[in-house]
Amino acid sequence: MEGPASPARIPRALPYYVAFSQLLGLIVVAMTGAWLGMYRGGIAWESALQFNVHPLCMIIGLVFLQGDALLVYRVFRNEAKRTTKVLHGLLHVFAFVIALVGLVAVFEHHRKKGYADLYSLHSWCGILVFALFFAQWLVGFSFFLFPGASFSLRSRYRPQHVFFGAAIFLLSVATALLGLKEALLFELGTKYSMFEPEGVLANVLGLLLATFATVILYILTRADWKRPLQAEEQALSMDFKTLTEGDSPSSQ
Amino acid sequence: MEGPASPARIPRALPYYVAFSQLLGLIVVAMTGAWLGMYRGGIAWESALQFNVHPLCMIIGLVFLQGDALLVYRVFRNEAKRTTKVLHGLLHVFAFVIALVGLVAVFEHHRKKGYADLYSLHSWCGILVFALFFAQWLVGFSFFLFPGASFSLRSRYRPQHVFFGAAIFLLSVATALLGLKEALLFELGTKYSMFEPEGVLANVLGLLLATFATVILYILTRADWKRPLQAEEQALSMDFKTLTEGDSPSSQ
Repeated sequence: MEGPASPARIPRALPYYVAFSQLLGLIVVAMTGAWLGMYRGGIAWESALQFNVHPLCMIIGLVFLQGDALLVYRVFRNEAKRTTKVLHGLLHVFAFVIALVGLVAVFEHHRKKGYADLYSLHSWCGILVFALFFAQWLVGFSFFLFPGASFSLRSRYRPQHVFFGAAIFLLSVATALLGLKEALLFELGTKYSMFEPEGVLANVLGLLLATFATVILYILTRADWKRPLQAEEQALSMDFKTLTEGDSPSSQ
Repeated sequence: MEGPASPARIPRALPYYVAFSQLLGLIVVAMTGAWLGMYRGGIAWESALQFNVHPLCMIIGLVFLQGDALLVYRVFRNEAKRTTKVLHGLLHVFAFVIALVGLVAVFEHHRKKGYADLYSLHSWCGILVFALFFAQWLVGFSFFLFPGASFSLRSRYRPQHVFFGAAIFLLSVATALLGLKEALLFELGTKYSMFEPEGVLANVLGLLLATFATVILYILTRADWKRPLQAEEQALSMDFKTLTEGDSPSSQ
Protein backbone atom coordinates (compact mmCIF):
# COMPACT_ATOMS: atom_id res chain seq x y z
CA MET A 1 0.00 0.00 0.00
CA GLU A 2 3.05 2.29 -0.27
CA GLY A 3 2.31 5.31 -2.43
CA PRO A 4 3.97 5.64 -5.83
CA ALA A 5 7.21 7.57 -6.17
CA SER A 6 5.99 10.23 -8.62
CA PRO A 7 6.93 13.38 -6.71
CA ALA A 8 4.42 15.81 -8.21
CA ARG A 9 1.24 13.99 -7.29
CA ILE A 10 -0.84 15.14 -4.32
CA PRO A 11 -3.80 12.95 -3.29
CA ARG A 12 -6.93 14.79 -4.39
CA ALA A 13 -8.80 14.94 -1.06
CA LEU A 14 -5.75 15.48 1.19
CA PRO A 15 -5.62 19.32 1.01
CA TYR A 16 -9.31 19.56 2.01
CA TYR A 17 -8.77 17.33 5.04
CA VAL A 18 -5.67 19.30 6.04
CA ALA A 19 -7.57 22.60 5.63
CA PHE A 20 -10.45 21.20 7.71
CA SER A 21 -8.03 20.11 10.46
CA GLN A 22 -6.49 23.59 10.57
CA LEU A 23 -9.91 25.23 10.72
CA LEU A 24 -10.89 22.92 13.59
CA GLY A 25 -7.58 23.55 15.39
CA LEU A 26 -7.99 27.33 15.13
CA ILE A 27 -11.61 27.15 16.31
CA VAL A 28 -10.51 25.06 19.31
CA VAL A 29 -7.80 27.61 20.25
CA ALA A 30 -10.20 30.55 19.73
CA MET A 31 -12.96 28.89 21.77
CA THR A 32 -10.54 28.18 24.61
CA GLY A 33 -9.59 31.87 24.56
CA ALA A 34 -13.26 32.89 24.42
CA TRP A 35 -14.14 30.58 27.34
CA LEU A 36 -11.31 31.99 29.50
CA GLY A 37 -12.11 35.55 28.46
CA MET A 38 -15.88 35.44 28.84
CA TYR A 39 -16.26 33.25 31.94
CA ARG A 40 -12.90 33.19 33.72
CA GLY A 41 -11.79 36.85 33.67
CA GLY A 42 -9.09 36.56 30.99
CA ILE A 43 -5.39 35.91 31.27
CA ALA A 44 -2.54 37.41 33.30
CA TRP A 45 0.72 36.10 34.78
CA GLU A 46 0.89 38.08 38.04
CA SER A 47 -2.54 37.45 39.54
CA ALA A 48 -5.14 34.79 40.28
CA LEU A 49 -5.70 34.74 36.52
CA GLN A 50 -2.34 32.97 36.15
CA PHE A 51 -4.21 29.66 36.22
CA ASN A 52 -5.87 30.55 32.90
CA VAL A 53 -2.48 30.52 31.17
CA HIS A 54 -2.48 26.75 31.76
CA PRO A 55 -5.40 25.61 29.57
CA LEU A 56 -4.58 28.08 26.78
CA CYS A 57 -0.90 27.05 26.55
CA MET A 58 -1.75 23.34 26.70
CA ILE A 59 -4.34 23.62 23.93
CA ILE A 60 -1.96 25.62 21.71
CA GLY A 61 1.13 23.50 22.45
CA LEU A 62 0.07 19.93 23.14
CA VAL A 63 -3.06 19.84 20.99
CA PHE A 64 -2.82 22.25 18.03
CA LEU A 65 0.96 22.40 17.46
CA GLN A 66 1.56 18.75 18.33
CA GLY A 67 -1.21 17.75 15.91
CA ASP A 68 0.31 19.90 13.17
CA ALA A 69 3.79 18.51 13.84
CA LEU A 70 2.41 15.03 13.07
CA LEU A 71 1.03 16.23 9.72
CA VAL A 72 4.36 17.59 8.44
CA TYR A 73 5.20 14.48 6.36
CA ARG A 74 1.74 14.49 4.77
CA VAL A 75 1.83 18.20 3.86
CA PHE A 76 5.47 18.52 2.71
CA ARG A 77 5.55 15.63 0.30
CA ASN A 78 8.27 16.69 -2.13
CA GLU A 79 10.66 18.72 0.00
CA ALA A 80 13.99 17.20 1.03
CA LYS A 81 13.54 14.60 3.73
CA ARG A 82 16.00 16.36 6.06
CA THR A 83 14.18 19.71 5.87
CA THR A 84 10.89 18.00 6.67
CA LYS A 85 12.48 16.17 9.61
CA VAL A 86 13.91 19.40 11.02
CA LEU A 87 10.50 21.08 10.73
CA HIS A 88 8.85 18.09 12.45
CA GLY A 89 11.40 18.27 15.30
CA LEU A 90 11.18 22.07 15.60
CA LEU A 91 7.37 22.10 15.78
CA HIS A 92 7.66 19.65 18.66
CA VAL A 93 10.17 21.96 20.38
CA PHE A 94 7.75 24.91 20.06
CA ALA A 95 4.90 22.74 21.36
CA PHE A 96 7.04 21.62 24.31
CA VAL A 97 8.18 25.15 25.25
CA ILE A 98 4.60 26.51 25.14
CA ALA A 99 3.36 23.56 27.18
CA LEU A 100 6.16 24.15 29.70
CA VAL A 101 4.89 27.72 30.24
CA GLY A 102 1.44 26.22 30.85
CA LEU A 103 2.91 23.75 33.32
CA VAL A 104 4.78 26.45 35.28
CA ALA A 105 1.58 28.53 35.38
CA VAL A 106 -0.46 25.84 37.11
CA PHE A 107 2.27 24.89 39.60
CA GLU A 108 2.81 28.58 40.52
CA HIS A 109 -0.94 29.05 40.86
CA HIS A 110 -1.17 26.03 43.20
CA ARG A 111 1.78 27.27 45.27
CA LYS A 112 0.30 30.77 45.69
CA LYS A 113 -3.12 29.39 46.64
CA GLY A 114 -1.70 26.59 48.82
CA TYR A 115 -3.42 23.88 46.72
CA ALA A 116 -2.08 20.33 46.59
CA ASP A 117 -0.22 19.24 43.44
CA LEU A 118 -0.58 16.15 41.30
CA TYR A 119 -3.47 14.42 43.03
CA SER A 120 -5.94 14.19 40.11
CA LEU A 121 -6.19 11.82 37.16
CA HIS A 122 -5.79 14.87 34.89
CA SER A 123 -2.47 15.77 36.50
CA TRP A 124 -1.19 12.17 36.45
CA CYS A 125 -2.02 11.89 32.73
CA GLY A 126 -0.45 15.30 32.12
CA ILE A 127 2.85 14.36 33.76
CA LEU A 128 2.84 11.10 31.83
CA VAL A 129 2.33 13.04 28.59
CA PHE A 130 5.28 15.33 29.41
CA ALA A 131 7.59 12.42 30.23
CA LEU A 132 6.61 10.42 27.13
CA PHE A 133 6.77 13.49 24.86
CA PHE A 134 10.27 14.33 26.06
CA ALA A 135 11.52 10.74 25.78
CA GLN A 136 10.02 10.35 22.31
CA TRP A 137 11.67 13.59 21.16
CA LEU A 138 15.09 12.57 22.48
CA VAL A 139 14.94 9.09 20.97
CA GLY A 140 13.55 10.46 17.68
CA PHE A 141 16.31 13.07 17.52
CA SER A 142 19.10 10.56 18.16
CA PHE A 143 17.76 8.08 15.61
CA PHE A 144 16.66 10.37 12.80
CA LEU A 145 18.54 13.68 13.01
CA PHE A 146 21.79 12.73 14.72
CA PRO A 147 23.96 11.19 12.00
CA GLY A 148 24.94 8.01 13.88
CA ALA A 149 22.02 5.63 13.37
CA SER A 150 22.20 3.22 10.46
CA PHE A 151 19.52 3.00 7.77
CA SER A 152 18.53 -0.44 9.06
CA LEU A 153 18.15 0.80 12.64
CA ARG A 154 16.06 3.76 11.45
CA SER A 155 13.78 1.50 9.41
CA ARG A 156 13.17 -0.74 12.38
CA TYR A 157 12.48 2.11 14.80
CA ARG A 158 10.33 4.23 12.43
CA PRO A 159 6.99 2.36 12.91
CA GLN A 160 7.42 2.49 16.71
CA HIS A 161 8.14 6.23 16.54
CA VAL A 162 5.04 6.83 14.42
CA PHE A 163 2.79 4.75 16.69
CA PHE A 164 3.98 6.34 19.92
CA GLY A 165 3.80 9.82 18.39
CA ALA A 166 0.12 9.28 17.62
CA ALA A 167 -0.49 7.67 21.04
CA ILE A 168 1.11 10.60 22.91
CA PHE A 169 -0.98 13.05 20.87
CA LEU A 170 -4.18 11.13 21.71
CA LEU A 171 -3.24 10.99 25.40
CA SER A 172 -2.66 14.76 25.28
CA VAL A 173 -6.17 15.33 23.92
CA ALA A 174 -7.69 12.96 26.51
CA THR A 175 -5.81 14.85 29.24
CA ALA A 176 -7.19 18.14 27.91
CA LEU A 177 -10.74 16.72 28.07
CA LEU A 178 -10.15 15.64 31.70
CA GLY A 179 -8.81 19.09 32.56
CA LEU A 180 -11.77 20.83 30.92
CA LYS A 181 -14.18 18.64 32.87
CA GLU A 182 -12.27 19.35 36.10
CA ALA A 183 -12.37 23.11 35.50
CA LEU A 184 -16.14 22.93 34.86
CA LEU A 185 -16.99 20.85 37.92
CA PHE A 186 -14.77 22.91 40.27
CA GLU A 187 -16.30 26.18 39.13
CA LEU A 188 -19.88 25.41 38.12
CA GLY A 189 -20.65 22.62 40.59
CA THR A 190 -24.35 21.75 40.50
CA LYS A 191 -25.04 24.68 38.14
CA TYR A 192 -23.44 22.52 35.42
CA SER A 193 -26.65 20.45 35.34
CA MET A 194 -28.76 23.55 34.57
CA PHE A 195 -27.28 23.96 31.10
CA GLU A 196 -25.39 27.13 32.04
CA PRO A 197 -23.95 28.82 28.92
CA GLU A 198 -20.38 28.17 30.17
CA GLY A 199 -21.09 24.46 30.51
CA VAL A 200 -22.61 24.20 27.04
CA LEU A 201 -19.71 26.17 25.51
CA ALA A 202 -17.17 23.92 27.23
CA ASN A 203 -19.01 20.74 26.15
CA VAL A 204 -18.96 21.92 22.52
CA LEU A 205 -15.25 22.70 22.94
CA GLY A 206 -14.74 19.15 24.23
CA LEU A 207 -16.50 17.63 21.21
CA LEU A 208 -14.45 19.82 18.85
CA LEU A 209 -11.24 18.68 20.57
CA ALA A 210 -12.24 15.06 19.96
CA THR A 211 -13.12 15.87 16.33
CA PHE A 212 -9.75 17.60 15.78
CA ALA A 213 -7.94 14.50 17.11
CA THR A 214 -10.04 12.26 14.84
CA VAL A 215 -9.30 14.28 11.70
CA ILE A 216 -5.53 14.38 12.44
CA LEU A 217 -5.56 10.63 13.05
CA TYR A 218 -7.50 10.02 9.84
CA ILE A 219 -4.99 11.99 7.75
CA LEU A 220 -2.09 10.17 9.46
CA THR A 221 -3.45 6.67 8.97
CA ARG A 222 -4.70 6.84 5.33
CA ALA A 223 -2.23 4.43 3.72
CA ASP A 224 -2.45 6.12 0.30
CA TRP A 225 -1.74 9.57 1.78
CA LYS A 226 1.68 8.60 3.15
CA ARG A 227 4.61 10.64 1.87
CA PRO A 228 5.98 8.91 -1.25
CA LEU A 229 9.61 7.75 -1.11
CA GLN A 230 12.01 10.20 -2.77
CA ALA A 231 14.40 8.88 -5.42
CA GLU A 232 17.40 8.67 -3.00
CA GLU A 233 15.36 6.98 -0.28
CA GLN A 234 13.98 4.49 -2.78
CA ALA A 235 17.46 3.44 -3.86
CA LEU A 236 18.49 3.01 -0.20
CA SER A 237 15.32 1.11 0.55
CA MET A 238 15.98 -1.29 -2.34
CA ASP A 239 19.53 -1.93 -1.10
CA PHE A 240 18.15 -2.54 2.36
CA LYS A 241 15.52 -4.93 1.07
CA THR A 242 18.10 -6.90 -0.89
CA LEU A 243 20.37 -7.05 2.13
CA THR A 244 17.69 -8.22 4.53
CA GLU A 245 15.73 -10.59 2.30
CA GLY A 246 14.69 -13.58 4.36
CA ASP A 247 14.61 -11.38 7.45
CA SER A 248 11.34 -9.63 6.68
CA PRO A 249 9.51 -7.73 9.47
CA SER A 250 6.70 -10.31 9.43
CA SER A 251 9.06 -13.00 10.69
CA GLN A 252 9.60 -11.17 13.98
CA MET B 1 4.07 -4.38 4.20
CA GLU B 2 1.24 -6.93 3.65
CA GLY B 3 1.99 -10.14 5.53
CA PRO B 4 2.78 -13.29 3.56
CA ALA B 5 0.00 -15.76 2.77
CA SER B 6 1.51 -18.80 4.56
CA PRO B 7 -1.41 -19.73 6.81
CA ALA B 8 0.49 -21.47 9.60
CA ARG B 9 2.75 -18.62 10.64
CA ILE B 10 1.93 -16.54 13.72
CA PRO B 11 4.09 -13.46 14.39
CA ARG B 12 6.34 -14.34 17.30
CA ALA B 13 5.50 -11.49 19.68
CA LEU B 14 1.76 -11.26 18.88
CA PRO B 15 0.51 -13.87 21.43
CA TYR B 16 2.36 -12.09 24.25
CA TYR B 17 0.83 -8.73 23.36
CA VAL B 18 -2.64 -10.29 23.11
CA ALA B 19 -2.17 -12.02 26.49
CA PHE B 20 -1.00 -8.72 28.01
CA SER B 21 -4.05 -6.91 26.61
CA GLN B 22 -6.37 -9.54 28.13
CA LEU B 23 -4.62 -9.33 31.49
CA LEU B 24 -4.97 -5.53 31.43
CA GLY B 25 -8.63 -5.76 30.39
CA LEU B 26 -9.45 -8.19 33.20
CA ILE B 27 -7.60 -6.05 35.76
CA VAL B 28 -9.55 -2.98 34.59
CA VAL B 29 -12.90 -4.83 34.97
CA ALA B 30 -11.88 -6.25 38.37
CA MET B 31 -10.67 -2.85 39.62
CA THR B 32 -13.91 -1.21 38.53
CA GLY B 33 -15.79 -3.87 40.50
CA ALA B 34 -13.47 -3.40 43.50
CA TRP B 35 -13.91 0.39 43.40
CA LEU B 36 -17.72 0.10 43.31
CA GLY B 37 -17.71 -2.61 45.99
CA MET B 38 -15.26 -1.00 48.41
CA TYR B 39 -16.20 2.66 48.11
CA ARG B 40 -19.66 2.84 46.55
CA GLY B 41 -21.64 0.15 48.41
CA GLY B 42 -21.73 -2.43 45.62
CA ILE B 43 -24.30 -3.07 42.93
CA ALA B 44 -28.08 -3.55 42.86
CA TRP B 45 -30.84 -2.78 40.37
CA GLU B 46 -33.69 -1.79 42.71
CA SER B 47 -32.03 0.82 44.95
CA ALA B 48 -29.79 3.88 44.95
CA LEU B 49 -27.00 1.45 44.02
CA GLN B 50 -28.53 1.19 40.55
CA PHE B 51 -26.16 3.93 39.41
CA ASN B 52 -23.20 1.59 40.00
CA VAL B 53 -24.48 -0.74 37.27
CA HIS B 54 -23.61 2.05 34.81
CA PRO B 55 -19.79 2.21 35.12
CA LEU B 56 -19.43 -1.59 35.42
CA CYS B 57 -21.52 -2.33 32.31
CA MET B 58 -19.78 0.36 30.28
CA ILE B 59 -16.31 -0.88 31.19
CA ILE B 60 -17.24 -4.50 30.38
CA GLY B 61 -19.17 -3.67 27.18
CA LEU B 62 -17.67 -0.59 25.57
CA VAL B 63 -14.09 -1.00 26.77
CA PHE B 64 -13.18 -4.67 27.33
CA LEU B 65 -15.54 -6.43 24.87
CA GLN B 66 -15.28 -3.72 22.22
CA GLY B 67 -11.48 -3.86 22.47
CA ASP B 68 -11.54 -7.65 22.10
CA ALA B 69 -13.94 -7.46 19.15
CA LEU B 70 -11.32 -5.35 17.33
CA LEU B 71 -8.63 -8.00 17.92
CA VAL B 72 -10.61 -10.86 16.36
CA TYR B 73 -8.85 -10.64 12.97
CA ARG B 74 -5.42 -10.63 14.62
CA VAL B 75 -6.16 -13.61 16.87
CA PHE B 76 -8.08 -15.85 14.42
CA ARG B 77 -5.65 -15.74 11.54
CA ASN B 78 -6.36 -19.00 9.76
CA GLU B 79 -10.06 -19.59 10.39
CA ALA B 80 -12.55 -19.04 7.57
CA LYS B 81 -13.09 -15.34 6.92
CA ARG B 82 -16.86 -15.64 7.38
CA THR B 83 -16.58 -17.29 10.82
CA THR B 84 -14.21 -14.54 11.95
CA LYS B 85 -16.57 -11.85 10.64
CA VAL B 86 -19.54 -13.38 12.48
CA LEU B 87 -17.53 -13.49 15.71
CA HIS B 88 -16.47 -9.86 15.21
CA GLY B 89 -20.11 -8.83 14.66
CA LEU B 90 -21.39 -10.92 17.59
CA LEU B 91 -18.87 -9.55 20.08
CA HIS B 92 -20.06 -6.07 19.11
CA VAL B 93 -23.67 -7.17 19.72
CA PHE B 94 -22.75 -8.43 23.21
CA ALA B 95 -20.86 -5.22 23.91
CA PHE B 96 -23.84 -3.15 22.76
CA VAL B 97 -26.43 -5.07 24.83
CA ILE B 98 -24.31 -4.83 28.00
CA ALA B 99 -23.74 -1.12 27.39
CA LEU B 100 -27.49 -0.66 26.86
CA VAL B 101 -28.13 -2.08 30.35
CA GLY B 102 -25.60 0.43 31.67
CA LEU B 103 -27.37 3.23 29.82
CA VAL B 104 -30.82 2.28 31.19
CA ALA B 105 -29.32 2.12 34.70
CA VAL B 106 -28.07 5.70 34.65
CA PHE B 107 -31.26 7.13 33.10
CA GLU B 108 -33.44 5.29 35.66
CA HIS B 109 -31.18 6.50 38.47
CA HIS B 110 -31.49 10.10 37.27
CA ARG B 111 -35.28 9.77 36.94
CA LYS B 112 -35.68 8.38 40.48
CA LYS B 113 -33.43 11.07 41.98
CA GLY B 114 -34.86 13.89 39.83
CA TYR B 115 -31.42 14.68 38.32
CA ALA B 116 -31.09 16.37 34.93
CA ASP B 117 -30.05 14.22 31.97
CA LEU B 118 -27.42 14.79 29.31
CA TYR B 119 -25.88 18.04 30.49
CA SER B 120 -22.25 16.97 30.92
CA LEU B 121 -19.43 16.46 28.43
CA HIS B 122 -19.29 12.81 29.57
CA SER B 123 -22.93 12.28 28.64
CA TRP B 124 -22.59 14.06 25.29
CA CYS B 125 -19.58 11.92 24.39
CA GLY B 126 -21.43 8.82 25.59
CA ILE B 127 -24.48 9.46 23.40
CA LEU B 128 -22.17 10.15 20.47
CA VAL B 129 -20.39 6.81 21.09
CA PHE B 130 -23.74 4.98 21.11
CA ALA B 131 -24.92 6.61 17.89
CA LEU B 132 -21.61 6.02 16.07
CA PHE B 133 -21.30 2.45 17.39
CA PHE B 134 -24.80 1.59 16.17
CA ALA B 135 -24.31 3.23 12.76
CA GLN B 136 -20.91 1.54 12.29
CA TRP B 137 -22.42 -1.85 13.15
CA LEU B 138 -25.32 -1.42 10.72
CA VAL B 139 -23.11 -0.24 7.86
CA GLY B 140 -20.52 -2.94 8.61
CA PHE B 141 -23.22 -5.62 8.65
CA SER B 142 -24.73 -4.54 5.36
CA PHE B 143 -21.35 -4.30 3.61
CA PHE B 144 -19.57 -7.35 4.97
CA LEU B 145 -22.14 -9.90 6.17
CA PHE B 146 -25.18 -9.19 4.04
CA PRO B 147 -24.46 -10.85 0.69
CA GLY B 148 -25.29 -7.87 -1.54
CA ALA B 149 -22.12 -5.76 -1.55
CA SER B 150 -19.59 -6.35 -4.32
CA PHE B 151 -15.94 -7.18 -3.67
CA SER B 152 -14.92 -3.78 -5.02
CA LEU B 153 -17.34 -1.94 -2.72
CA ARG B 154 -16.10 -3.93 0.28
CA SER B 155 -12.46 -3.18 -0.55
CA ARG B 156 -13.18 0.52 -0.74
CA TYR B 157 -15.17 0.64 2.49
CA ARG B 158 -12.85 -1.64 4.55
CA PRO B 159 -10.19 0.99 5.50
CA GLN B 160 -12.94 3.42 6.58
CA HIS B 161 -14.59 0.72 8.69
CA VAL B 162 -11.28 -0.13 10.37
CA PHE B 163 -10.44 3.53 11.06
CA PHE B 164 -13.85 4.41 12.50
CA GLY B 165 -13.91 1.19 14.55
CA ALA B 166 -10.67 2.22 16.23
CA ALA B 167 -11.86 5.83 16.62
CA ILE B 168 -15.14 4.78 18.28
CA PHE B 169 -13.21 2.50 20.65
CA LEU B 170 -10.87 5.37 21.59
CA LEU B 171 -13.80 7.74 22.12
CA SER B 172 -15.38 5.08 24.37
CA VAL B 173 -12.25 4.95 26.52
CA ALA B 174 -12.03 8.77 26.67
CA THR B 175 -15.71 8.86 27.71
CA ALA B 176 -14.99 6.32 30.46
CA LEU B 177 -12.14 8.51 31.75
CA LEU B 178 -14.47 11.54 31.82
CA GLY B 179 -17.11 9.52 33.68
CA LEU B 180 -14.58 8.27 36.22
CA LYS B 181 -13.39 11.82 36.85
CA GLU B 182 -17.00 13.02 37.21
CA ALA B 183 -17.81 10.27 39.73
CA LEU B 184 -14.70 11.18 41.76
CA LEU B 185 -15.33 14.93 41.84
CA PHE B 186 -19.05 14.54 42.67
CA GLU B 187 -18.36 12.19 45.57
CA LEU B 188 -14.96 13.17 46.94
CA GLY B 189 -15.05 16.90 46.27
CA THR B 190 -12.10 18.60 47.97
CA LYS B 191 -11.11 15.33 49.70
CA TYR B 192 -9.81 14.25 46.27
CA SER B 193 -6.81 16.56 46.80
CA MET B 194 -5.88 14.79 50.05
CA PHE B 195 -4.86 11.59 48.25
CA GLU B 196 -7.85 9.64 49.61
CA PRO B 197 -7.45 5.91 48.86
CA GLU B 198 -10.51 6.00 46.58
CA GLY B 199 -9.00 8.81 44.52
CA VAL B 200 -5.67 7.04 44.14
CA LEU B 201 -7.38 3.76 43.20
CA ALA B 202 -9.49 5.53 40.58
CA ASN B 203 -6.46 7.38 39.16
CA VAL B 204 -4.61 4.07 38.76
CA LEU B 205 -7.74 2.64 37.11
CA GLY B 206 -7.73 5.61 34.70
CA LEU B 207 -4.08 5.03 33.75
CA LEU B 208 -4.76 1.31 33.23
CA LEU B 209 -7.71 2.17 30.97
CA ALA B 210 -5.41 4.35 28.86
CA THR B 211 -2.79 1.57 28.79
CA PHE B 212 -5.37 -1.02 27.69
CA ALA B 213 -6.44 1.25 24.82
CA THR B 214 -2.79 1.78 23.81
CA VAL B 215 -2.00 -1.96 23.73
CA ILE B 216 -5.14 -2.75 21.69
CA LEU B 217 -4.25 0.05 19.26
CA TYR B 218 -0.67 -1.17 19.00
CA ILE B 219 -1.77 -4.73 18.10
CA LEU B 220 -4.25 -3.35 15.56
CA THR B 221 -1.83 -1.04 13.80
CA ARG B 222 1.29 -3.27 13.52
CA ALA B 223 1.37 -3.71 9.73
CA ASP B 224 3.13 -7.09 9.92
CA TRP B 225 0.55 -8.46 12.39
CA LYS B 226 -2.38 -8.02 10.01
CA ARG B 227 -4.32 -11.17 9.16
CA PRO B 228 -2.75 -12.73 6.04
CA LEU B 229 -4.98 -13.09 2.99
CA GLN B 230 -6.44 -16.61 2.64
CA ALA B 231 -6.03 -18.42 -0.70
CA GLU B 232 -9.58 -17.57 -1.94
CA GLU B 233 -9.27 -13.91 -0.95
CA GLN B 234 -5.89 -13.65 -2.63
CA ALA B 235 -7.32 -14.88 -5.94
CA LEU B 236 -10.19 -12.39 -5.70
CA SER B 237 -7.82 -9.59 -4.77
CA MET B 238 -5.64 -10.34 -7.83
CA ASP B 239 -8.68 -10.22 -10.12
CA PHE B 240 -9.74 -6.95 -8.54
CA LYS B 241 -6.28 -5.46 -8.94
CA THR B 242 -6.18 -6.40 -12.61
CA LEU B 243 -9.65 -4.95 -13.17
CA THR B 244 -8.92 -1.64 -11.47
CA GLU B 245 -5.33 -1.04 -12.61
CA GLY B 246 -4.97 2.66 -13.35
CA ASP B 247 -7.61 3.42 -10.73
CA SER B 248 -5.38 2.83 -7.71
CA PRO B 249 -6.44 4.23 -4.32
CA SER B 250 -3.58 6.72 -4.36
CA SER B 251 -5.16 8.58 -7.26
CA GLN B 252 -8.20 9.52 -5.20
